Amino acid sequence: MDGWMFKVALPRSWPCCWVLSVKSLQRHKLPNVNQTNARSETVKIIWQPRDIPSMKLIETELSYSFMDIGPIAKYHALHTDHAQKLHELPDEHLQDMLPVAKRIALAIGCEDYNILQNNGRPAHQFVDHVHFHVIPKPSKSDEEGLVIGWPAQAFTKDELQKSYEELKSRL
Amino acid sequence: MDGWMFKVALPRSWPCCWVLSVKSLQRHKLPNVNQTNARSETVKIIWQPRDIPSMKLIETELSYSFMDIGPIAKYHALHTDHAQKLHELPDEHLQDMLPVAKRIALAIGCEDYNILQNNGRPAHQFVDHVHFHVIPKPSKSDEEGLVIGWPAQAFTKDELQKSYEELKSRL
Repeated sequence: MDGWMFKVALPRSWPCCWVLSVKSLQRHKLPNVNQTNARSETVKIIWQPRDIPSMKLIETELSYSFMDIGPIAKYHALHTDHAQKLHELPDEHLQDMLPVAKRIALAIGCEDYNILQNNGRPAHQFVDHVHFHVIPKPSKSDEEGLVIGWPAQAFTKDELQKSYEELKSRL
Repeated sequence: MDGWMFKVALPRSWPCCWVLSVKSLQRHKLPNVNQTNARSETVKIIWQPRDIPSMKLIETELSYSFMDIGPIAKYHALHTDHAQKLHELPDEHLQDMLPVAKRIALAIGCEDYNILQNNGRPAHQFVDHVHFHVIPKPSKSDEEGLVIGWPAQAFTKDELQKSYEELKSRL
């Protein structure tokens, strides 16, 4: 991967440590990837107007990770792939994701952390590539790390059973 | 898996659709697994005082999923394993997780959804086994699905560079 330059621009409030599918980048013409110099394998990924240099962490055959400039906790990391949503990724790519997340979590060394992957704007996805967050949670405070709201639904047993049968029939 | 009975009890506000590592259950003596009838392969997993019957969704060599009675959205699903935290799981187990999550997401058929895995009490983990949530997000509303808070941190470029060097040195 030497010679590749990932320039990723994100809102200040968004992290930018990713695992990218290198093969996918080579295979696919991403709408927001600007291959400025194919000969020298320089690739720019422009998600937002602000460019930042990459800070590479881990590289596998399928993925590439680099650091974040807009973390919600120290060492906040992400990894991503070319598809927009998780269900669009081949299993081979999905299988590569969590072992890398594990390596990052072990390197971070935090006791408590969240793995988060969002699909779609309503679900808080604002960059249209599958990306997993590895987010340390240094304390219970809402001032750092992922803050989670949990609106429990009041489904009846019958409604749950019906949902189950619907879901099972589609598997 | 016919003949297995997973009884899982969770607070009403928590989901209970899991993918369990069957092999792990067979190999490991879990502190909160009560193997009441090994001969008929009946297994009870008691996490909380309230028992519920299992509603199986997907079974693989390494995992087992079943429905939730405390969802935060219709079809809210989870999958889990024997270890407490993600970084304690073997890669083989991690590789099994996301393809199953993908199958569940495809069966749910929702456009927008979150994949969430929490590690540790401060990070909102209240059941001490690795478990991935597959949570539909039917709308932007905070009334259903995962609600996310994002407390952006104000690290300087130098602080970020230092974090990067520390993290990279530990990989």
